[in-house]
Amino acid sequence: MSRAEDGGTGARFLEEIREQPAALRRLLGHDAEIARIAATMRDRDARLVRFVGHGSSDNAASYGVYALGLLPRWTAMRDSITLTVHYGTPLDMAGSTVIGLSQSGRTPDVLDYVRGARDAGAFTVAVTNDPSSELSAVADATIPLAAEPELAVAATKTYLNTLASLALLAGHVAGRGRELAAGIRGAADLLEAALPGLERSTAKLALPFAYTGRMFVIGRGVEFATAREIALKLLETCRIAAEPLTTTDLAHGPIAALDPFFPVWAIASDDGTLPTVQEAATRTREMGASLVASGTAAERIKGAAFTVPVPLPEPALLSPLLSVVPGQLFASALARARGLDPDAPHGLAKVTLAQ
Amino acid sequence: MSRAEDGGTGARFLEEIREQPAALRRLLGHDAEIARIAATMRDRDARLVRFVGHGSSDNAASYGVYALGLLPRWTAMRDSITLTVHYGTPLDMAGSTVIGLSQSGRTPDVLDYVRGARDAGAFTVAVTNDPSSELSAVADATIPLAAEPELAVAATKTYLNTLASLALLAGHVAGRGRELAAGIRGAADLLEAALPGLERSTAKLALPFAYTGRMFVIGRGVEFATAREIALKLLETCRIAAEPLTTTDLAHGPIAALDPFFPVWAIASDDGTLPTVQEAATRTREMGASLVASGTAAERIKGAAFTVPVPLPEPALLSPLLSVVPGQLFASALARARGLDPDAPHGLAKVTLAQ
Repeated sequence: MSRAEDGGTGARFLEEIREQPAALRRLLGHDAEIARIAATMRDRDARLVRFVGHGSSDNAASYGVYALGLLPRWTAMRDSITLTVHYGTPLDMAGSTVIGLSQSGRTPDVLDYVRGARDAGAFTVAVTNDPSSELSAVADATIPLAAEPELAVAATKTYLNTLASLALLAGHVAGRGRELAAGIRGAADLLEAALPGLERSTAKLALPFAYTGRMFVIGRGVEFATAREIALKLLETCRIAAEPLTTTDLAHGPIAALDPFFPVWAIASDDGTLPTVQEAATRTREMGASLVASGTAAERIKGAAFTVPVPLPEPALLSPLLSVVPGQLFASALARARGLDPDAPHGLAKVTLAQ
Repeated sequence: MSRAEDGGTGARFLEEIREQPAALRRLLGHDAEIARIAATMRDRDARLVRFVGHGSSDNAASYGVYALGLLPRWTAMRDSITLTVHYGTPLDMAGSTVIGLSQSGRTPDVLDYVRGARDAGAFTVAVTNDPSSELSAVADATIPLAAEPELAVAATKTYLNTLASLALLAGHVAGRGRELAAGIRGAADLLEAALPGLERSTAKLALPFAYTGRMFVIGRGVEFATAREIALKLLETCRIAAEPLTTTDLAHGPIAALDPFFPVWAIASDDGTLPTVQEAATRTREMGASLVASGTAAERIKGAAFTVPVPLPEPALLSPLLSVVPGQLFASALARARGLDPDAPHGLAKVTLAQ
């Protein structure tokens, strides 16, 4: 019996990974609130969407850009907090929806940004796991993540629920809320069924990567968020210098750093980006680096040393709800193999109050 | 005499670093064209600015977001190429200026994006070192970088001239073109005077970092572009797993990976972000990691193992024209110390045609 299973090192992190299907279903209990927020965005014609957040929240924002772009075809961006908060630049935000993302609802510069954005004419929405937090108090509306308390320092279920809340919001803005809610319910079911197998397959990766110090995690489009989030889990729980890159970022310089001791984790989805992932995978192998392929189209990546496929949800835009999980489980297994505690990484606290 | 000085390994890369003051002055010969493009942006009220580019061009776009934000107070973003090009999503781009950045003018998906954006109603501008390129042909207007041929694979003078062209464009949009042109001329003079000293001080860093495999490069606000560009130089020329992070990114997880063999390079400018850099530097030292401080406020970072200050230009927004140069020179010296050729890194070509 592993230490995680008997409540020791890493038990919380693993338990919270396992809770994700239930957390997704809880979020759906807030569908009506999310629909109302979408209606306000449409009524106010606040169709330039500005996301602000850090860490896993910012990774989820990378996904939000695609959810808003693909569903209602609105332009969304991860906005600069520094420009308005640290440089004090007044921007006209009429016609903007601001979505402040913070699991704790206490991230200082996100709070400052949202306060300023509301004064500057934006419609402001808090996405937080604590609806009684300061972030909720300063925003016009709140989407509660409903993930229940997350105790491991490294986020898992709050990340997944942030993705789902943004997909559902974008669905409602596009008049497709019912379809997206059903899709999230379906993804939760698929994930629940897949989890035991994913735990077994990722556990086998811990030993081969026990000495890995550097890694690239590549993804494109909706899966770039996944690449960012997997890299962050590896950094914070396994102390691997894991850098997320788009497939084309990789080609524009970083590929030169690869060698047999510098593996690449590729997330492949079966959409318009798949040829770019396949091309990047080929170039990775040419550099002698070993390759892990995950995602809904993992089996379409040739020459991978390890393949961890996940089932395909409907609509495919929801794939990141599943494709991040092998990375979370790999981080959990590898951290324990390396003698590290993923529940409480050295140097980190659950609520980051850094400016 | 080093190999670089006698025309051997790395000679082009170093020579092109040294050419940067002259390249900046050449760009100023195109001031009137840049002013006309700015006038068109104002006339068309195309005030949502979308940057697209990869590698060093995308790093420069990080700076462009601040130049447009701080000078005319317009909202600018690094847009998703994937959303429109690979997913085929039609976005309404009336009211947008699109700035396509490509040294070669041949980056395939940047070309595709700009073509689509023009059809979708955007005012499209090419920023390229080859005004006879396809990118110029498909855009409404062109800013020629005037850097003259860049032969080393790792970009230096085209990066600096891209920064300067965006600062000058933003200056003209804000009615401050003359001030920015004078500032760029002043920055070129400061850089020319500082270069010999910077070459000497960065050469001393090569030996202490000869065995470094991983590094974070941190910066905030206008200097985040610098952090990204220095990290990219270290990846492509020195094969270091160098990851750029904002100061707050560092606190939200990656700091847990630091140890005495995982150094941090911090870029400090004397603006509203300096307290965040100081806080990140303190936390870095607490993790036992050694710290290099560069930038115009390098000397205000306490406890750095090495300090490489650069002179402060006027306006301070132009600091990134100087602060990236110690990183370029460090990469040049370190690559040669490691027996690598920064002119032609393994696995890279000058023009990247990856999708």
